[in-house]
Amino acid sequence: MPLKALVFDAYGTLFDVHSVIRRCEQLWPGKGERISQLWRSKQLEYTWQRSLMRRYEPFSLVTRAALDYACEILGAALGPREAELLMRDYLELAAYPDVAAALEKLSALRLAILSNGSPDMLDPLVKHCGMERVFAAVISVDELRVYKPAPEVYALAVSKLGVSADEIGFVSSNCWDAIGAKSFGLSTYWINRGGAPVDRLGFAPDRRLNGLGELPALLAR
Amino acid sequence: MPLKALVFDAYGTLFDVHSVIRRCEQLWPGKGERISQLWRSKQLEYTWQRSLMRRYEPFSLVTRAALDYACEILGAALGPREAELLMRDYLELAAYPDVAAALEKLSALRLAILSNGSPDMLDPLVKHCGMERVFAAVISVDELRVYKPAPEVYALAVSKLGVSADEIGFVSSNCWDAIGAKSFGLSTYWINRGGAPVDRLGFAPDRRLNGLGELPALLAR
Repeated sequence: MPLKALVFDAYGTLFDVHSVIRRCEQLWPGKGERISQLWRSKQLEYTWQRSLMRRYEPFSLVTRAALDYACEILGAALGPREAELLMRDYLELAAYPDVAAALEKLSALRLAILSNGSPDMLDPLVKHCGMERVFAAVISVDELRVYKPAPEVYALAVSKLGVSADEIGFVSSNCWDAIGAKSFGLSTYWINRGGAPVDRLGFAPDRRLNGLGELPALLAR
Repeated sequence: MPLKALVFDAYGTLFDVHSVIRRCEQLWPGKGERISQLWRSKQLEYTWQRSLMRRYEPFSLVTRAALDYACEILGAALGPREAELLMRDYLELAAYPDVAAALEKLSALRLAILSNGSPDMLDPLVKHCGMERVFAAVISVDELRVYKPAPEVYALAVSKLGVSADEIGFVSSNCWDAIGAKSFGLSTYWINRGGAPVDRLGFAPDRRLNGLGELPALLAR
C-alpha cells in the first residue's frame, strides 16, 4: 500500500541534540562533548526507567534532571545560570543540514512529528526552525504519560493522523525507536548518519539510509 | 519495623559483571574494558526497551544480543567460539570481595536474590559461587516477563518471601534499581562502590553505603 503519511522522530532525527556542545564547551572548557553525550544518554535512560516505574514526568523535567547528573559526574559546576542557558538552547537546537530540502521534496505526503518531547519543548523548537507549516501534526507522548518505545506511542500517531498503520512510514535516527515502531507495525526508515550497528531487539528497520536526503528518492521508486 | 528479610540484586551488586574483562582482553587485546562496559550498558538498555516494547526475551538472550552489538561497534570479531567462552564466563562471574563476609554476618535475616537474570544464568552462577545455601530464595523476573525497575518485579519479592513490604530491605549497586524498589515501597540500600552520583528519578535510596561490608553494622544499630 502506498504511504499517505510520514512520521518523524524529532530529537536526533530532525534536530541535532548535540547542538549544545558549543555552549557546554564555553561553560566547561574541555568537557563540552562528554557532557553533551552523557546528558543525552542519561536523558534516554531516564525516559525508559521512569516509564517502567510508572513515574512519568515530562521530557523537560527529565532533560533537566539528566543535565544535573551529567554535570555532577563530570565535575562541571551547574548553577541556575548555566542550567537556564542550556535548557534554552534545547529550544533552539539546529535542524540537521539534510532536513529542510528532504521535507520540501516529501511535501506531497502528510508529514508529522512523533516525539518524546513535551509540548513545552517541542512547540518552541519547531517554531524556532520555521517548520510550523511543514507538519500536519506535532504529536507528543505527553498525553499518554509513557515514553518510546511503548507500542501505544506509535498507535497514537495512527489515531491522530486518521490513516491506517500500513499507510504510515516512520522515520528515526534512533535505531531502537525505529525498531519499536516496526514492532508495533509501521514501515520504518532508519536514518543511520553515523554508521552505527543495528540494535539487536528482535526486529530490524525496513530500510537503512545514510541520511534524510536519501528518503525522497527511495520513496519515489 | 525491624527487617525480616534482605533482598539483593545480583549483577553488579553481588557479582562483578566486569569479571569478563580479562577474557575480552585476551580475545581482543586493547579492547577488553571498552567491550565489557559497552556490553553491560547495551544489556541494560535492551532490558528497558524490550520491556517497554512488550517483547520480553530472557536475560540470557538479551545478554548475548548485547555482546553482538558491543563487538560490532568496536570492531571485535565475534565467532561462535568467542561467544561461547564469554557466555560461559557469565555463569562464573566473581563475587565482589566484600560479599561473603557480609552475607555471613547477615545470616540471621532471610536472604534472597531478586534479579533480571533468567534461571539458566542465575542458578549456575549462584552454585559456582557456592551460595546455594545462603539464600532462602533466588527470584528471577523471568516469570513476570518484564524487567526492573517495573514495580511488579519488586512486588514479586514480597509475594515470594511471604513477609510484608516494610519488613524487606532491598540492596543494589545499581542506583536506578534501588530507586525502583524505593518507588515501589521497599527500604533501600544503595551500595555505591564507585562513588557515582545518585540518579535523578524522583526518589532517593534510603541509605548510601560505600560497600557491602558496611551493611551489617548499619543494620545492627
